[in-house]
Amino acid sequence: MNKTPAENISRIPEAVMRRLPRYYRHLVSLEKKENVRVSSKQLGESLLMTASQIRHDLNFFGGFGQQGYGYNVSELKSKLVHILGIDIVRKVVIVGAGNIGRALAGYSSFKGEGFEVLAIFDNNPELIDTEIRGIKIFDAADLSQFIKDNNIDIVVLTIPEKHAQQIAYISQQAGAGAVWNFAPVDVRLEGLQVENINLTDSLMTLSFRLACLEKGGC
Amino acid sequence: MNKTPAENISRIPEAVMRRLPRYYRHLVSLEKKENVRVSSKQLGESLLMTASQIRHDLNFFGGFGQQGYGYNVSELKSKLVHILGIDIVRKVVIVGAGNIGRALAGYSSFKGEGFEVLAIFDNNPELIDTEIRGIKIFDAADLSQFIKDNNIDIVVLTIPEKHAQQIAYISQQAGAGAVWNFAPVDVRLEGLQVENINLTDSLMTLSFRLACLEKGGC
Repeated sequence: MNKTPAENISRIPEAVMRRLPRYYRHLVSLEKKENVRVSSKQLGESLLMTASQIRHDLNFFGGFGQQGYGYNVSELKSKLVHILGIDIVRKVVIVGAGNIGRALAGYSSFKGEGFEVLAIFDNNPELIDTEIRGIKIFDAADLSQFIKDNNIDIVVLTIPEKHAQQIAYISQQAGAGAVWNFAPVDVRLEGLQVENINLTDSLMTLSFRLACLEKGGC
Repeated sequence: MNKTPAENISRIPEAVMRRLPRYYRHLVSLEKKENVRVSSKQLGESLLMTASQIRHDLNFFGGFGQQGYGYNVSELKSKLVHILGIDIVRKVVIVGAGNIGRALAGYSSFKGEGFEVLAIFDNNPELIDTEIRGIKIFDAADLSQFIKDNNIDIVVLTIPEKHAQQIAYISQQAGAGAVWNFAPVDVRLEGLQVENINLTDSLMTLSFRLACLEKGGC
């Protein structure tokens, strides 16, 4: 996957930031199993990291653990929820009602992690005013006004490559702070937070690695 | 996105490997625009890299360019096609006929880049023997035999977290070399090539960055 650095908004190294959701997911599962405390050593063993890497990462956000006692699972999880900003409901729209857009409209993690999908946009007249899983499809021409009227935080782009940068620009101008981009092109705009999910690139790296294996290394 | 290193199969640094699909995509678009040659400087400007980074990356695969003449677009593209292994048709199955599985069954890049989806597997009796976009859904119990009989290269996992590692193991035992994993858990198996596409993690890093912005930095 291509990574877009979190330009200047964070003193947290990119690699540390990207490990935070893994810590969060692991703490959720520990809490489900009714674990009360966990040491950095145990966390490290589960996440295939060293205890000191774990402590180093978490120290960016203040010292949560107690020497010799480890971390309180629920407390650390709550702090990660706050750090990750998933204690706030984020308003989301999806642009593009094709295969991936439709799948994301029904994506359970949106609801589970506090993301609310308010609308879908498309430019196909046959789709406008229909619904996908109870979410209405609007005319793409109304995207900007909708973002303004509803204080949309995140715009999901599941549209062809040629429109991605332009729709990202419109979204930013209307006040959206972030774009989750599934178009096969890297969207970049100063001040806009972007995650580029390039599925084709990911598939190609798998193919590259299979080809390497077949050549006996490369 | 979480990255799984290409364990020992490649002397190519992870970061270089992940840039190869971007080079390929850019060369495809240059070829469409009927560009014959391109310099490392021009490539760098388009891809927001320096000319020397471009040359450094491509030198891992031998010297393609000619000092002062740049690269022949079609030639470099063809070499990247071979390096990425997308000149070979890769046989793919999808395990999980839910939202994401269905979307991927219709994913145009599969066909466009030489990946052939032969079957979908699910354990829901109501779905077995039905079709999605002309691709038949089989009983998940028959996955192993199907992989063996059809020399499947890549198994796409769009199943719940709790089954992901097990199905990856079954796939590897049956002879699949790679797993493209969309379950929200990092699949890891020695010798198996894995791309973990953790959509929830990606969404959380966007949320983290929005929260950072709102706090005025973090």
